[in-house]
Amino acid sequence: MCRMADSPRKRLIVIGAGFAGLNLVKGLRGLPLDIILVDKHNYHCFQPLLYQVATAGLSPADIAYPIRRVFRDQKNVRVVLGEVERIDLANKTVSGGEASVSYDYLAICVGVTHSYFGNEKWQPMAPGLKSIDDATEIRRKVLLAFEAAELEQDEASRRAKLTFVVVGGGPTGVEMAGALREIAAVDIQRDFRNIDTTTSRIMLLQGGDRLLPSMDPKLSARALKDLQDMGVEVRLNCRVTGVDETGVWVGDEQLPADNIIWAAGVQAPAMLRTLGVPTDRSGRIVVGPDLSIPGHPEVFVLGDAGAITDAKTNQPVPGLAPAAMQMGKFAAKVLRAELSGQSADVKARPGFSYHDKGTMATIGKRRAVADIKGWHITGLVAWLMWSVVHVMFLISFRTKLFVMAGWVYDYIMNNREARLITGKFRLHVVKPRGGATETTLLQTRGTSEQAAV
Amino acid sequence: MCRMADSPRKRLIVIGAGFAGLNLVKGLRGLPLDIILVDKHNYHCFQPLLYQVATAGLSPADIAYPIRRVFRDQKNVRVVLGEVERIDLANKTVSGGEASVSYDYLAICVGVTHSYFGNEKWQPMAPGLKSIDDATEIRRKVLLAFEAAELEQDEASRRAKLTFVVVGGGPTGVEMAGALREIAAVDIQRDFRNIDTTTSRIMLLQGGDRLLPSMDPKLSARALKDLQDMGVEVRLNCRVTGVDETGVWVGDEQLPADNIIWAAGVQAPAMLRTLGVPTDRSGRIVVGPDLSIPGHPEVFVLGDAGAITDAKTNQPVPGLAPAAMQMGKFAAKVLRAELSGQSADVKARPGFSYHDKGTMATIGKRRAVADIKGWHITGLVAWLMWSVVHVMFLISFRTKLFVMAGWVYDYIMNNREARLITGKFRLHVVKPRGGATETTLLQTRGTSEQAAV
Repeated sequence: MCRMADSPRKRLIVIGAGFAGLNLVKGLRGLPLDIILVDKHNYHCFQPLLYQVATAGLSPADIAYPIRRVFRDQKNVRVVLGEVERIDLANKTVSGGEASVSYDYLAICVGVTHSYFGNEKWQPMAPGLKSIDDATEIRRKVLLAFEAAELEQDEASRRAKLTFVVVGGGPTGVEMAGALREIAAVDIQRDFRNIDTTTSRIMLLQGGDRLLPSMDPKLSARALKDLQDMGVEVRLNCRVTGVDETGVWVGDEQLPADNIIWAAGVQAPAMLRTLGVPTDRSGRIVVGPDLSIPGHPEVFVLGDAGAITDAKTNQPVPGLAPAAMQMGKFAAKVLRAELSGQSADVKARPGFSYHDKGTMATIGKRRAVADIKGWHITGLVAWLMWSVVHVMFLISFRTKLFVMAGWVYDYIMNNREARLITGKFRLHVVKPRGGATETTLLQTRGTSEQAAV
Repeated sequence: MCRMADSPRKRLIVIGAGFAGLNLVKGLRGLPLDIILVDKHNYHCFQPLLYQVATAGLSPADIAYPIRRVFRDQKNVRVVLGEVERIDLANKTVSGGEASVSYDYLAICVGVTHSYFGNEKWQPMAPGLKSIDDATEIRRKVLLAFEAAELEQDEASRRAKLTFVVVGGGPTGVEMAGALREIAAVDIQRDFRNIDTTTSRIMLLQGGDRLLPSMDPKLSARALKDLQDMGVEVRLNCRVTGVDETGVWVGDEQLPADNIIWAAGVQAPAMLRTLGVPTDRSGRIVVGPDLSIPGHPEVFVLGDAGAITDAKTNQPVPGLAPAAMQMGKFAAKVLRAELSGQSADVKARPGFSYHDKGTMATIGKRRAVADIKGWHITGLVAWLMWSVVHVMFLISFRTKLFVMAGWVYDYIMNNREARLITGKFRLHVVKPRGGATETTLLQTRGTSEQAAV
């Protein structure tokens, strides 16, 4: 391959339009650069609110925004819907399907998925929550569980249908468990006739000895207490040893559950192995202080896909949305300086340091925990802060406005706006026992009414 | 089967929670009746706005509402998520899967689907628009078409990807064609680099000699003119004779198009054939003036699934949402009178007559046609009326408020809130020609920039 004389602009390929990729490209506005932004979806997804889609609180469109629209007026960007399958560092090309494209600079911003710790076969029974499609799939499963329980005759089977096990006690796990409990205990409790949804069992299993391990232990304790007050069963130091159609195994104990949600572990996409460079045990690429791959100053790894050590603290940079945003902005600054000729020496690049403005996790209505530069905030105040911060970061003014107004409305009305079971499904029809086929539909709770048999 | 002595309440089974079923059940509030409402979805769908979901203007949750929530406080209703597969009029049972339930009264409110006039094999290439899942499927296809065109090298293939053929010139077809034209000509035109979306070809094929045949010919003419002014190609007296992967056939002429949307014909669900009673040629059940099946006063057919003659005008009742609502209310009144003992003689039942408050169809921004008791209203005034009426009938106050506010916002901003390609898809990767594999991604429009080969 050779570069033609009338193509003077250097080309940057950015893989992934998450927080890192989006902020990198935004930071390069106006530069004489040919930017190709590749993503396998046509939208940027605001991942911190995915759990709200999974629990029917928000619609997908509330937290997803078309990438093309973001860069509509930034003329140095071309957006491509597609999937990169291989990266060739030596020849400076990325390829997918039959197409192959060369780059001068590359930014790998592909994020991570959950890890089943080598037990990928658990995945169908215990879906993770990393994409919009994951979220609508979990929403379908959760809503169908209540429908199936309403029709179920057998008490043990009904209990299993009303048991929800969330694996992983990080922010996603805590938020999922809290939201599931609110659905069951408040939002839908008057909607069923045969089941009492408030008796649903919501379990949160955490491998470590506390929830939210990235936060201060005091906040971990508060999150535990809040969840327990709401009625979530939390188990600490609890390692899942098996998952099958009937439930979760923890050592010798089986927890019968039809609904398992996986929110544990971290694993980089397999595609990164095509690079042939050192990774950590989660498959994340080890990068230097300037966020580039050692020996390849033209290749940045930004966001969760990189194993990044903070240049100031020497601690690993956490896998959080604000960190990814900061990395995107950092790399944009580096590139801008080099392309404008201010600083052509790649050895003189600054090192990246994460500026921690605070971390927070929501647990339920009026319940959240926040750690803002050492200040610990809990309860209603933390919850209000969480709401404001998350709405502020939503990408468009429209969604900011509508999501905020919707939350206020739903808060007052105990409503869930998006209780739709979409896509194909088949409701598990209960096998009749004896001659009583009719009772499938007709058993009612708390009345003396008999089915007509 | 026999009825047990301690089950004094009569049972009504309602199949389908569309406009007819919903209004029937609402009208029976407080009656000592055991109502089972069966639907294959967990939500009521506001069908008149489905085309807005298909064209990325609204989210599914904006027009769908959980059935259980509607009847949360109406204690004589049990909602069942399930599909009825057979109806046995003689034994008074409905069944599905392994379950079978007996009834005293039955209301069949299952609606209709589109008809391919015996060419069901056209369906995969030309999906219809009758459900939320249809709508998100069409949305995916439409949005992917622009993405694929952006990557396409071959001019003819690119033209086909940017050609949208809507078959059927009733309200759905007119609304779809107008909305597609607005997407291509206004909403996304600045988002692409290789294609000019304003050159997209939107065709509307109508078998009859005018659009909107259920409305006054003057309004048909106005709808035609409006669509043509917007840039939609309308063909009247145009019968589709074939559909395949490459486009639509009209006699000997082929219209190359990758995007075909079917909005023609009417066909009742096949399940109705299990009844063994007379139907019209669309499979709709012929009912008497009281909307019950002749010889079966206990079985009502309400909404589009019935072939119903107006008791006053002797004209067929049109398949419109307001007619279905009125039929639901009518049947509720009849049942209420009989169950309260006021009027036990089924022969004395009144006849149903449709009260036409007006019909309207929207065409585009500031363009609609309305026929209100002989008054013909067009343009901006009709469009505002259409907006107000449709928002008024949305089921919840929350969606009313949010959909209206969203429309105002999107109207001003030329925005489409739900431009998401969800679910599984595979983008058709363009085969490279010659050695120029790179150009797949890199061809740009209107610049002298060359690809690096």
